[in-house]
Amino acid sequence: MRVLGVDPGLTRCGVGVVAGTAGRPLTMAGVGVIRTPADAPIGDRLVLIERGLEEWLDEHRPDAVAVERVFSQHNVRTVMGTAQASAVAILCAARRGLPVHLHTPSEVKAAVTGSGRADKAQVGQMVTRLLRLDAPPKPADAADALALAICHIWRGAAAGRLQQAVAQHRAVRTQEPAR
Amino acid sequence: MRVLGVDPGLTRCGVGVVAGTAGRPLTMAGVGVIRTPADAPIGDRLVLIERGLEEWLDEHRPDAVAVERVFSQHNVRTVMGTAQASAVAILCAARRGLPVHLHTPSEVKAAVTGSGRADKAQVGQMVTRLLRLDAPPKPADAADALALAICHIWRGAAAGRLQQAVAQHRAVRTQEPAR
Repeated sequence: MRVLGVDPGLTRCGVGVVAGTAGRPLTMAGVGVIRTPADAPIGDRLVLIERGLEEWLDEHRPDAVAVERVFSQHNVRTVMGTAQASAVAILCAARRGLPVHLHTPSEVKAAVTGSGRADKAQVGQMVTRLLRLDAPPKPADAADALALAICHIWRGAAAGRLQQAVAQHRAVRTQEPAR
Repeated sequence: MRVLGVDPGLTRCGVGVVAGTAGRPLTMAGVGVIRTPADAPIGDRLVLIERGLEEWLDEHRPDAVAVERVFSQHNVRTVMGTAQASAVAILCAARRGLPVHLHTPSEVKAAVTGSGRADKAQVGQMVTRLLRLDAPPKPADAADALALAICHIWRGAAAGRLQQAVAQHRAVRTQEPAR
């Protein structure tokens, strides 16, 4: 499974591609940041983000896209820009028929470090270790995008096992009256 | 001048096209609502909004697009959806090289009714009168989209007059030392 993680932002939009399956070592297929000038009109910035994401999707052909879920509890101005960038990421993925999943920052931190309250440095260190990189990817947005992709592969596997267990349980229960 | 007004929303995205210039009677070229099912995944909803807006842009070929500026002071969940829908509208316009302008709800109300605190009914009545319609457009999102387009034509004219006055003033000042 190949997942494109997107840490949405207008100034820096982190992107990272991770390949692999849960329970086996994961591989980084690419990491980077799409930047747009802070003084450009919002429309031009969203077009640049769209073009950048399309290039990443064309090159890496992921099976799924994982985007950070945006909350509005923080700075209003920043949150609006983040919501707009995330909308473009969700749109680009859905337009190609790719499954899009949103993960909260604490879900990502918990999946990668074991703690939902881990700081940026801890996330960067665990991403480096899990993907066997020489150094933590810079800037933090790039590392966060990889963490999102890792989180998605692991959570997807957990959700799959849960669904399987429920299905098996139901199958057994359905068979019981027949005995 | 032909302006497409967009009142962004995931469930109902109001769209309205107004043609004309400030100081002369305006004409409605079209009004409607793009709807998406509340139970559909967010990605599919954004794709539906994009497709709907593209159809409106193809059919009406506006010179500019006016989108309601989103604030996050209200309900968090609604605001995120509105921000995402508005991002798609801004993206569609900018991708075609069309100028995009954001107007706050109170700017629109003030432009159309004379009061920034006017209610939905008052906005609907003034839109009906200004565009010489038989009845207020329904739902309110459609009327709001027309109000945005009207606001844009009028505010654009005011901004143009101001720029012209400033330019004339500068030209006079520049000539003075030469006398």
